[in-house]
Amino acid sequence: MGASDYKFEHFNVTFPAEYVAQVQIDRPKKLNAFTPAMFTSLGAIFNKLSHDENVRAIILTGNGDRAFTAGLDVQAASDSGFMTLGKGEDVARRGVKIQRHIQEIQDTVTAVEKCEKPVIAVMHGYAYGLAIDMTTCCDVRICAKDTTFSVREVEIGIAADVGTLSRLPYSGVSMSFIKDVALTARDWSAEEALRVGFVSAVYDSKKEALDRALHLAKLIATKSPVAVQGTKQVINYSRDHQIVDGLEYIKVWNASMVQTKDTEDALLAGIKKKKPVFAKL
Amino acid sequence: MGASDYKFEHFNVTFPAEYVAQVQIDRPKKLNAFTPAMFTSLGAIFNKLSHDENVRAIILTGNGDRAFTAGLDVQAASDSGFMTLGKGEDVARRGVKIQRHIQEIQDTVTAVEKCEKPVIAVMHGYAYGLAIDMTTCCDVRICAKDTTFSVREVEIGIAADVGTLSRLPYSGVSMSFIKDVALTARDWSAEEALRVGFVSAVYDSKKEALDRALHLAKLIATKSPVAVQGTKQVINYSRDHQIVDGLEYIKVWNASMVQTKDTEDALLAGIKKKKPVFAKL
Amino acid sequence: MGASDYKFEHFNVTFPAEYVAQVQIDRPKKLNAFTPAMFTSLGAIFNKLSHDENVRAIILTGNGDRAFTAGLDVQAASDSGFMTLGKGEDVARRGVKIQRHIQEIQDTVTAVEKCEKPVIAVMHGYAYGLAIDMTTCCDVRICAKDTTFSVREVEIGIAADVGTLSRLPYSGVSMSFIKDVALTARDWSAEEALRVGFVSAVYDSKKEALDRALHLAKLIATKSPVAVQGTKQVINYSRDHQIVDGLEYIKVWNASMVQTKDTEDALLAGIKKKKPVFAKL
Amino acid sequence: MGASDYKFEHFNVTFPAEYVAQVQIDRPKKLNAFTPAMFTSLGAIFNKLSHDENVRAIILTGNGDRAFTAGLDVQAASDSGFMTLGKGEDVARRGVKIQRHIQEIQDTVTAVEKCEKPVIAVMHGYAYGLAIDMTTCCDVRICAKDTTFSVREVEIGIAADVGTLSRLPYSGVSMSFIKDVALTARDWSAEEALRVGFVSAVYDSKKEALDRALHLAKLIATKSPVAVQGTKQVINYSRDHQIVDGLEYIKVWNASMVQTKDTEDALLAGIKKKKPVFAKL
Amino acid sequence: MGASDYKFEHFNVTFPAEYVAQVQIDRPKKLNAFTPAMFTSLGAIFNKLSHDENVRAIILTGNGDRAFTAGLDVQAASDSGFMTLGKGEDVARRGVKIQRHIQEIQDTVTAVEKCEKPVIAVMHGYAYGLAIDMTTCCDVRICAKDTTFSVREVEIGIAADVGTLSRLPYSGVSMSFIKDVALTARDWSAEEALRVGFVSAVYDSKKEALDRALHLAKLIATKSPVAVQGTKQVINYSRDHQIVDGLEYIKVWNASMVQTKDTEDALLAGIKKKKPVFAKL
Amino acid sequence: MGASDYKFEHFNVTFPAEYVAQVQIDRPKKLNAFTPAMFTSLGAIFNKLSHDENVRAIILTGNGDRAFTAGLDVQAASDSGFMTLGKGEDVARRGVKIQRHIQEIQDTVTAVEKCEKPVIAVMHGYAYGLAIDMTTCCDVRICAKDTTFSVREVEIGIAADVGTLSRLPYSGVSMSFIKDVALTARDWSAEEALRVGFVSAVYDSKKEALDRALHLAKLIATKSPVAVQGTKQVINYSRDHQIVDGLEYIKVWNASMVQTKDTEDALLAGIKKKKPVFAKL
Repeated sequence: MGASDYKFEHFNVTFPAEYVAQVQIDRPKKLNAFTPAMFTSLGAIFNKLSHDENVRAIILTGNGDRAFTAGLDVQAASDSGFMTLGKGEDVARRGVKIQRHIQEIQDTVTAVEKCEKPVIAVMHGYAYGLAIDMTTCCDVRICAKDTTFSVREVEIGIAADVGTLSRLPYSGVSMSFIKDVALTARDWSAEEALRVGFVSAVYDSKKEALDRALHLAKLIATKSPVAVQGTKQVINYSRDHQIVDGLEYIKVWNASMVQTKDTEDALLAGIKKKKPVFAKL
Repeated sequence: MGASDYKFEHFNVTFPAEYVAQVQIDRPKKLNAFTPAMFTSLGAIFNKLSHDENVRAIILTGNGDRAFTAGLDVQAASDSGFMTLGKGEDVARRGVKIQRHIQEIQDTVTAVEKCEKPVIAVMHGYAYGLAIDMTTCCDVRICAKDTTFSVREVEIGIAADVGTLSRLPYSGVSMSFIKDVALTARDWSAEEALRVGFVSAVYDSKKEALDRALHLAKLIATKSPVAVQGTKQVINYSRDHQIVDGLEYIKVWNASMVQTKDTEDALLAGIKKKKPVFAKL
Repeated sequence: MGASDYKFEHFNVTFPAEYVAQVQIDRPKKLNAFTPAMFTSLGAIFNKLSHDENVRAIILTGNGDRAFTAGLDVQAASDSGFMTLGKGEDVARRGVKIQRHIQEIQDTVTAVEKCEKPVIAVMHGYAYGLAIDMTTCCDVRICAKDTTFSVREVEIGIAADVGTLSRLPYSGVSMSFIKDVALTARDWSAEEALRVGFVSAVYDSKKEALDRALHLAKLIATKSPVAVQGTKQVINYSRDHQIVDGLEYIKVWNASMVQTKDTEDALLAGIKKKKPVFAKL
Repeated sequence: MGASDYKFEHFNVTFPAEYVAQVQIDRPKKLNAFTPAMFTSLGAIFNKLSHDENVRAIILTGNGDRAFTAGLDVQAASDSGFMTLGKGEDVARRGVKIQRHIQEIQDTVTAVEKCEKPVIAVMHGYAYGLAIDMTTCCDVRICAKDTTFSVREVEIGIAADVGTLSRLPYSGVSMSFIKDVALTARDWSAEEALRVGFVSAVYDSKKEALDRALHLAKLIATKSPVAVQGTKQVINYSRDHQIVDGLEYIKVWNASMVQTKDTEDALLAGIKKKKPVFAKL
Repeated sequence: MGASDYKFEHFNVTFPAEYVAQVQIDRPKKLNAFTPAMFTSLGAIFNKLSHDENVRAIILTGNGDRAFTAGLDVQAASDSGFMTLGKGEDVARRGVKIQRHIQEIQDTVTAVEKCEKPVIAVMHGYAYGLAIDMTTCCDVRICAKDTTFSVREVEIGIAADVGTLSRLPYSGVSMSFIKDVALTARDWSAEEALRVGFVSAVYDSKKEALDRALHLAKLIATKSPVAVQGTKQVINYSRDHQIVDGLEYIKVWNASMVQTKDTEDALLAGIKKKKPVFAKL
Repeated sequence: MGASDYKFEHFNVTFPAEYVAQVQIDRPKKLNAFTPAMFTSLGAIFNKLSHDENVRAIILTGNGDRAFTAGLDVQAASDSGFMTLGKGEDVARRGVKIQRHIQEIQDTVTAVEKCEKPVIAVMHGYAYGLAIDMTTCCDVRICAKDTTFSVREVEIGIAADVGTLSRLPYSGVSMSFIKDVALTARDWSAEEALRVGFVSAVYDSKKEALDRALHLAKLIATKSPVAVQGTKQVINYSRDHQIVDGLEYIKVWNASMVQTKDTEDALLAGIKKKKPVFAKL
C-alpha cells in the first residue's frame, strides 16, 4: 500500500522514510478541530496502518503553525446533530443513543492505541480536549515548547468521555497534576508536561520536534518488526493487567515469536557490524 | 447548610467563597495530632460536604504555623485504649477486634476520597503519618516549601494501615521513592515531593499556598458541578479499574449526565463571553 | 547463617553491617553478563536471604568499574543451547519448551521481588537488558552518574520476556518514556532515570552510591523487622491490586502483626530516646 | 444484647436458641412488602447482629403463610416520593439523586452479606423481587415447596438495581436459567430452584423448613466462631477475587486466627468426645 | 427494517411475531456447517439486529432435521486457505497472521453476545464445536431431546479458540463436567446438558422447542425494552466483573434508565390490568 | 521415565496404560491420612508428571476400601510440631512462620492444578478435608456411591486454608450448598455431590469408578497432547480471568500451537478412519 490508499478528507498520510508513515491532521484554518466525519477517518486510517506491512512506525502531527488540534469542532458537531442527539425523546431512549454514540467515537480513538505499529505524537500550539484523548492512545509523546495543553471538557459542561479521564491515570503522570488540570480545564505548558512526564521530550520548534520524531521512527523501523510490535503489545497488555498476568502473557507470546528468524539475523548482524534486513510484517 | 451545621471539636469548617468550603484541622498546640474522636469527625464532615449543594470545592488545611498534622496522637490513642485493643485476649479474638477497628478508621479517611466534591490539600510544617494517609485521598495536593513529610509508621513498629501504602502506588509517584520513604520513615522535603509528583506545586509560605488553593477552588466552583463531579468520579473509577472499564463507565455515566442543561449554558456562555450560572448539585 | 552459606559461582554475598547483606554480581571480565547457571544462583540466593533471620536489608551491586551487568551473555547462552531450545522440532512442541524455559528464568528474577527483606539496587556503568528486569524487582533503585541504561532486547530481535515490559508500567515512571526506550533499545542516562523516577537518587560515583545504599540499609535494619517486612509486602500487594483490596489486605495483615511486642518497644524507645532492640525475624 | 435491643417496626428479632438469632419480616397483611423505612431497619439489624457476641448464626424468614416477601411495596414507595425522586429536575441532577438513592438501598441489603455471622434464608409463598436481592446476600438458602420465586423488576419497567443481577451470576446457578427468569419476570418453583442450585434444600412446609434452618443454625453455633466466621469471610472473598488472591487471603487471615485457643479445645473435645465450649466473638 | 434488510447467504432471517426475529442457519445439506464467509455474515446479522428498533428478542436455530450446526466446515475451510494460513512463512509472522485471523472470527461470534437484544438458542441434532462457541454467547439455551453436543476441537488437534473454553466456565455449569467433555471431545446428551445447566429446558422435538422459544421471545417482547436490554447488559457486565463493580454499574446505568416513561406506563398497566405499549428502542 | 522414577513413601505411582499414570495415596491403615512429609511428596510427584513426556493423563486415587483420604493426620501433624508452629513466640513472628508454612503446603496442592496433564480424581469412602482441597485442583472428579465427603476444618476450629474455600466457588457448584457444607462441616453423599456438580459421575463401586477413569484417561491419551494440554491450560486461565482475557489468551496461545503437525495428522486420520499417532510432549 502507499499514500494513494490513504485518501481521507482533512488528513494527509505520507511516507517520509522507508517503513515510516506520517498522519497529519489537516484542517489548519479551523485549528485542526475535528468534525464528526474526521473521527471515522481517524479510526479507518489507523486500522489500515495497523496491518500495512510497509509500515513499522507512525508519526501523528497537525498541519499549520497554530495547533496540533483545538479539539472537537463544536459548531460542526452542533450542525450535525452530534450534540443534541435524541433531544426531546424519552430520557432512557436518549440515554441509549448517547451510549451508542460515545461507543462509536471511543472506538475510533482506541484504534490509535490498538494499531500494531508504534505511534509517536508530535504536538505544538493548541493541544486541547481531543488532543489529550488521542495522544494518550499514542506510545510516545513529544512536543514543541510552544504547546499549550488543556483537558478542556469541563469548560463546556461535560466530563471527558473519549478516553482522557480513563487513560491519564495509566500514563505514569502525577495524579495530583491530572486532577488539577482536569477539574479546572486550565492551560498547561510544555515545561509542565515534561516535568510530570506526560511528554518525554520538548523541542524548540515544531520542526525540531518533527525531525526528532522522524529520527525515532526511522530508528524503530530498523529493528525487527516482530520484536517492536511484540514490545508495544506486551507493554500495553501489562499496563492493563497485573504483573503476573503480564509475565504469563509475554511467556505465551514468545512461544511463537522467538521462533522467528529475526533473532538469529539480528545477532549475526550485531557480530558482523552489519545492518540486518528483516522480512515485512 | 452553612458553617453552623459543621460544628466538630478540633475542626473549623468555613466558607471563604461562594461554593467553597475550607476544613481546618484545629488542634495547633498538639501539632494538629489526631485523637480517636477526630477520625469520627473527619468522616462525618466529609460525608456531609459530599451532598451539600452549597459546596463545589473543598480546601483541607491545618491551623497554626508548625504542622498540617503530626499524625496520630499516640498518647491520646493509648489513653483511650486505642493501641491496646483486646490486649490479653485470645489472639484470634483480639485479631477480629483489631480488624473491626482498622476498618472503622479506614472508613473515616476514605470518606475524604469518596466525597463527591474535589478536595485540595494544602500542607505545611509537619505532614507526618496520617497526613499522608489523608492527603492521598485528596484530589490535588500542594504545599508550602517548609513542609516536612514522613510516612512515619515503621518508626513505631507498624506497617501503615490507614491507606498510605495502598494509595501511594496509585498516585503516579516513582515506586523507588515510595519504598525509600516508607521503609525508612525518613523525612522528605517539599522539593522532593514536587520532583516525584506527590504534590503538584510548592509555594513560599503556607499563606501563599492557601491563596493558591482558594484561587483553584473558586475556579472549580465556576464550572458546571455536573461536569466537575463527574470528572472526579470518573478519574477515581478509572484509576481503580482497567482502561476498558473506565471507558465503559464514562459512557454509561454520560448517558444521563450529558442530558444536562449545563452543557448548553456553558456553550452559550462561552460564545457570549458571559459567566454561566449553574443550578446547585 | 553467614557468608559461608552463600557460596555461588559469580556472586559474592557479604554482610557489611549487622542485619545487612550485600549481593555482588561477580563476573567483571564479562561485564557481569549472566550465564544460564547464574539465573539459578540468583533465585537460590534471594530465596535463602528471604528467610534468613540475620538479614533485614539487602544491597544488590555489580563487581568492577564498568558494569552493573551488561545483561544476558549471548555467547554463553548460545553454547548451552539456551537460544536454540527445541530448534527443528514441531512448532507447538518447541513452543511448549520455550514457555517452560521462560517460566524458569522469570521465577529466578521474581525471587528478588518476593524476597521478604527490602532490596536496594545500586547501579553503575552498563545496566543493560537483564539489569532492568532484575532491578524492577528491587524496592529502591539508586545509581552512579556514569550509569548507562538500556532495555536492550529489541536490538536482538525479541520482546523482553523476563519482566521489564510487565514491571516498568508499575514503577511510577512516565509511560511515554518507557515506550521510547523499550521500542528503540536506545541508551539512557542517570539524569533521565532520575527525572522520570526510575531511580530515586544519583551519586557522583559507584562508591558514593554504595555508601548511601549501606546507610539506607543500616537505617532500615534499625527498625522493627515486623514493620519493615509488612511495609514491603503491603506496598507490593497494593501495587498489584485495587486500592480497596490493598486496604482489606493490610487490615487482615495487621490483625496479627500489630499484636507484636515491637510496637510497644518502639514507642518506649522513642519516649526514652533509646535505640530499640527487636527480636529476629 | 438481647431481643429488646432489636426493636424495629415490621421486624421481629428473636433468639430461638443459644447463639441463634431469627429475623422475621413482619408485615404479613401486605405480604411482607417493604416500605422505604424497612430498608433502613434491615441494614441496622444486620449491622448490629454482625458484632453481637451472643449471635453465631442467623435465620431470615417472613411472617404469615403467604409470603416471604412480595418485594417492594410500590404504593408506599410512591407515597414517599421514592419512585419519583427528583422528577422534573434537570436530567443530570435527577440522575445524581437517583444514584445516591440506589447506593443507600444497596448498602442496606449489602449489610446482610457483610454480616460476620452466617445467615440462612428460609423462603415460602411469594419470594418476589427484593426477596431475590436479599437472599442472594444470604449464605444458605432453603425453602418450602410452595415457594414461588420471581425476579420481578422488568414487569415494572426497570432493570433490578438492588443486587439480584450482580449476585446471581456468582451463585453457582445456570446462567441460561438466570437470563430466562430475569428477562421474562416469570414465576419459578421450588423444584426449579433446587435443580439449578439457587436453594440447597426444599421442605414440605414452611414449618419444616424453619425447623431444618434452626437445626442448621444450632449446629453452626456449636462450632468455633473463629472458624465459622473465617469460613464465611474467606468464601465470600474468594468468590469476589481470583483463586490466587483467595489463597493469599486465607494465608494472611490464618496468621492470626490459627493462634486461637479454639483449635486446641476443638481437637481435645474431639478426642474426649466432649462438646467444646468456645469464648464469645 | 424488515426481512429484506437481512439477506445473507446460508441464513434466513424472519420475523415470526411482532418484535421477534428468528435467525436460521440455513445450509442443511452440510449439517449447517460454517464456511468462512458465514462467520462474517453471522457478525453482520447480529450487529444489525442489535440496533434494529423493531426487534426485542431473537431466536437462533438451524434449518433441517439433522443438525443445529456440525461446526466448522473443515473442507471449505481448507479450500479457502483458512486452515493453512501463512504456512511455510517465518513462524513469528505466521503467528501474527493466525492471531489476526482468530481475532476476526472471535469478533463475529462475540457479536451475538454484544447484541443488545436477548438471544434464545434452540438446538437440535448435532450441536458440535462452533455450536458451543456460538450458544455460550446466547442468553437462554434450550434444546430438543435428540440433541447431541460436543466440544469437538481436540478431535482435530487444536484447543478451541472461538470462545467455548473462555465462556463455559462462566455459564454456571459444573467445572468437572466442562473439563470432562472438553478434554475428551466426547458426545453428551440433552439430558446431561439439562442436569448440569448448560440448557435450561429440553423439549420432545425441535418443533416443540421452537414453539417454546417463540413463546418466550414474545413474552420478552411485551416488556419494556429499556428494562429488558438493561437486564441483559447488567447481567453480562456483572458476570464479567466483581459484585461491587456490578452494583456500581447498575447504579450508574439506572441514573438515566429509571427516568424512562416505561416504568410509569408499566405500573399503570399493572393496576389497570391492561397491556402496556412501550416506545421502540 | 517410568515407575522407578516415582518412588515416594505412601504413594504408588503406576502406569496402567500407555501415556496414563495413576497416583495412589497409599497409607490405608490410617485411612490415607496425610503426614507432613506426604505433602512434599505430592508436590514433587505432580511437578515431575507435569513434564514427563510419557504421560498424557493422570488418575488420582486412594489405596484400600475405606477412604480416598481422611485428610490431615492430626496426630502426625502434632508430633512434628506442624500444629504448634512458633507457639509461645511473639504473635507477629509466629504469624510470619504460619504464613510461610501455609504457603508451603498450598504450593504442594497447587502443583496438582498446575500439572500440565489432566488429572482425574476417583474418590471413594471417606473424602474429608484435604480430599476436597486436593480434588478441587483436579480437572475431572468422579466417585463411588459409597463416598462420604466433608469440608472438615471448622470441626477442628479453623477455616480451611489449603484451597477448598478459594476453589469451590470456581467449581460451578451451588454457592448455597458450598456454604452449607463448609459452615457445618457436615457429611455429604455422592448423590448430593452429583446433583450440585461437584463430581460429574457416580459409580456403583470404587472398582467401577476406577475402570471408568481409566477409560477416560486412555481416551484423552489418544488425542493430540498439544490440543489436550492447551485445553486444560486455557480453561483454567479463563476460569481465573475475565472472558475477554480468556479470548485474548487462547488467541496468543494458538499463534504457536496451531502450527503443530498434529492438526494435519488428526484431520487426515479422521478422513482415513485411522488412529493418529502424535509425537510426545
